Amino acid sequence: MTASCPICVRISALTPGDPRFIAERPSGYALLGDHQRYRGYTLFVGRRCVRELHGLPRDERTQFLADMADVAEAVYRAFQPRKLNYELLGNSVAHLHWHLFPRYDDDADPSWPVWNDPQLFAAPATDQELRELGGRVRAALAG
Amino acid sequence: MTASCPICVRISALTPGDPRFIAERPSGYALLGDHQRYRGYTLFVGRRCVRELHGLPRDERTQFLADMADVAEAVYRAFQPRKLNYELLGNSVAHLHWHLFPRYDDDADPSWPVWNDPQLFAAPATDQELRELGGRVRAALAG
Repeated sequence: MTASCPICVRISALTPGDPRFIAERPSGYALLGDHQRYRGYTLFVGRRCVRELHGLPRDERTQFLADMADVAEAVYRAFQPRKLNYELLGNSVAHLHWHLFPRYDDDADPSWPVWNDPQLFAAPATDQELRELGGRVRAALAG
Repeated sequence: MTASCPICVRISALTPGDPRFIAERPSGYALLGDHQRYRGYTLFVGRRCVRELHGLPRDERTQFLADMADVAEAVYRAFQPRKLNYELLGNSVAHLHWHLFPRYDDDADPSWPVWNDPQLFAAPATDQELRELGGRVRAALAG
């Protein structure tokens, strides 16, 4: 826990009743993104406040990547997108977190990453929408 | 090998003398990107023509993620960026391949992904530049 890290602060305040909460995994947390323009947009947030993958000990790195891939597969199974995009960036907040974006045929620009879309973070989802979407990912993770 | 897949075609034509070639790993190939606006931009291309991570058997998935992370660490050590961006997209060519972008303080927009940068793919690097950059990643991989 780093007191100045927004992701650490968010994790420490997280409860299973949070509409964004999907599941806990050994190395971190699966959470829905606040914005659901790309239906099923999920974050997988590392438990530890580390900047780069190689900042994790080898066994934790392996676990973190496997947990991300399991969550990603569940997102895929829940939403059946055309393609999934997996992105570990951290340019603004350097605490390991994956962006998992389902991509659809009717996207603004299906052949390009989401980041040029001016509507990407325009409208936050409602709690009800988040709970419904999170339930679908949770069911796929359990199934 | 899928005859219609541009990445399969590229791999099948790859030789160690290619200025883009960095190294072979159990699950794939580390190659420099043709465009080096983000110095050290490296691709890690899967050996198998598979669309999503969960299309790989579990042991191959683990190896592919570990190989990517080893290559990413070498890119980081070679170029000492502010941050590394790791992206598995495949929106245009759906054969598993990671984009590893070193990000620097003097980037066009250090806080955002590279994909809005109109100069991203504007000027291909020369063979001489590629050989010099690839040598640095290879040395870091070996070290």
